[in-house]
Amino acid sequence: MRKTKVSNAVIRRMPRYYRHLTELQTAGVARISSNALGKAMGFTASQIRQDLSCFGEFGQRGYGYSVEKLRDEVADILGMNEGHTAVIFGVGNLGRALIGNFNFGKNGVRLLAAFDVDPRIVGTELAGVPILHPDSARAFLTENHVDIGVITVPKGNARDVGRLLVDCGVRGIWNFANVELDLDTSGNTVVENVHFADSLLALSYMISEE
Amino acid sequence: MRKTKVSNAVIRRMPRYYRHLTELQTAGVARISSNALGKAMGFTASQIRQDLSCFGEFGQRGYGYSVEKLRDEVADILGMNEGHTAVIFGVGNLGRALIGNFNFGKNGVRLLAAFDVDPRIVGTELAGVPILHPDSARAFLTENHVDIGVITVPKGNARDVGRLLVDCGVRGIWNFANVELDLDTSGNTVVENVHFADSLLALSYMISEE
Repeated sequence: MRKTKVSNAVIRRMPRYYRHLTELQTAGVARISSNALGKAMGFTASQIRQDLSCFGEFGQRGYGYSVEKLRDEVADILGMNEGHTAVIFGVGNLGRALIGNFNFGKNGVRLLAAFDVDPRIVGTELAGVPILHPDSARAFLTENHVDIGVITVPKGNARDVGRLLVDCGVRGIWNFANVELDLDTSGNTVVENVHFADSLLALSYMISEE
Repeated sequence: MRKTKVSNAVIRRMPRYYRHLTELQTAGVARISSNALGKAMGFTASQIRQDLSCFGEFGQRGYGYSVEKLRDEVADILGMNEGHTAVIFGVGNLGRALIGNFNFGKNGVRLLAAFDVDPRIVGTELAGVPILHPDSARAFLTENHVDIGVITVPKGNARDVGRLLVDCGVRGIWNFANVELDLDTSGNTVVENVHFADSLLALSYMISEE
């Protein structure tokens, strides 16, 4: 599976394929044409064939795609079968929402620990995830293989957390702190920023007067 | 300002322009070339000129863009000056995170009220936002002009909230419930779904073995 020339736009569409294929599978659909899949997702059939062709050959002319098989392939492409592990920094409202309500496991990610300075929660568990003091984070990251660091601390602390994660060789940072981390990652760490405002402003545009 | 032929991809990039121009302004940058703006955002200069040309003429050949002016124009395009109002359904962890930590006002949106069934919080305020019982939601939506409904209730309740919002003529739905709302909106209501998993899976892809 070669990834060298896959564009960012295609990468961004792959999780949506996974989501829609999961829904189809749940609905009991066994196979689907690229036309029908395209219609469900708002793409053209040729867009879908082109996207998937980045990763190999899927589906059969005249038969379409096996929903289950394609879903498994997309999961594999997305790294969902690699046993990725994660820790989260910041057990405020957003941290709690992610730990308690976001299903990391369903996305192939195992959440190992959470870090927070609040003495009232350090040493406890939330949804089975131990909450530790950040003082022990470096040791934890050294002793455990951690692929992803989730940042839900306040803005002012986000860069320190980012630097620690890079220092400890964590490859992926999922950053909710709404601040550029400005890390010297030397290309080894990938930062995925979540900007709620981008989504709200796109909606704001769409409901605005022409 | 015509919007008829603006593609979804361009719409999605506009909030990012706004974000970067805000950063430039904060950093004291008065003007910028499309080349430099492109470099900062990871686009080509011609992409930027093409995107902005959807909305009119900005910048001057040989001078570039006035950061402040372009930022104001983009804000206007995004509907940030239309005085949009919003209510939020669900004051759990995610609802609290949005009410307490997400700056609606900075995005031109005034959060009028929050709705939750929890008797311990109904009648109180959170960050200045009154928390009301959902039983009063229909009356509230009828008596107040509300542009956006934010959904942070559990999955199982999301569709009921969505239907109520459509019923009451709310034009935009910002849906965090991670479930398709399947609304009969007749094209009048726009739903913006936030899928955290899409973002995590894109990151998972990027850190996976080739």
